Amino acid sequence: MNGRLHHVGYVLPSIRDGVEPLRRSLGTAWDGVIVHDPLQSVNVAFLPSRDGPGPVVELIEPAGRRSPVRKFAESGGGLHHLCYEVPDLPERIRASQAAGDVVVRVPLPARAFDNRRIVFVRTSGGLLLEFLEAAGRP
Amino acid sequence: MNGRLHHVGYVLPSIRDGVEPLRRSLGTAWDGVIVHDPLQSVNVAFLPSRDGPGPVVELIEPAGRRSPVRKFAESGGGLHHLCYEVPDLPERIRASQAAGDVVVRVPLPARAFDNRRIVFVRTSGGLLLEFLEAAGRP
Repeated sequence: MNGRLHHVGYVLPSIRDGVEPLRRSLGTAWDGVIVHDPLQSVNVAFLPSRDGPGPVVELIEPAGRRSPVRKFAESGGGLHHLCYEVPDLPERIRASQAAGDVVVRVPLPARAFDNRRIVFVRTSGGLLLEFLEAAGRP
Repeated sequence: MNGRLHHVGYVLPSIRDGVEPLRRSLGTAWDGVIVHDPLQSVNVAFLPSRDGPGPVVELIEPAGRRSPVRKFAESGGGLHHLCYEVPDLPERIRASQAAGDVVVRVPLPARAFDNRRIVFVRTSGGLLLEFLEAAGRP
């Protein structure tokens, strides 16, 4: 039900300023692409694993004063959330609610993922999860 | 060079108290095993992904006053580090040093990973990385 780990979100004040040392530390390449997501008020970029199609590190910077990651970025940022790709997003949301977790907002299309829908869930343990509907869904 | 993402470390004050809500939120199972690692002064447990052999979430609680995660756990804890499994640990350490990152300690065998050696690296960007030597190495 939970799906596979798709990426780990990492917040930083500025992608442009922070990407090069992180890219070097991870021993990987960056495609130079920064995607603006107006619905989440963030800009994101992706650092792949060196070895093929495994989970990537998503760099996230705030876009605008009302960005949900602004405060965290201003305090220096860091590891932010885990994103799992799930075959059935509505079912996953129901499971989260049954587990007593808080679905932060309704599912919204995400520009960085071909407008597939994402949802953020604040777990009762405090961990922030993102669920991304798998490709090929309506 | 970087290898595959092996696990994501998550610090919490108590595995026993925190594992059940996290297990439920992740929609996965727990094998009930807690491993004490005296060299790292931590206890760890693992929550697998639902779908096969992907990266797992490693729960970490401090073991003793001198545990390196004690302060973080006392402040509530959260996402802590990314661990990559690498084919050549000495080469990876040299690459980290060349990237300007700080190797926290010499490689030490880790009980939770069949005494394969691990090393923690504080990157210049602030992200904490762990490197685990791949199985089958001397």
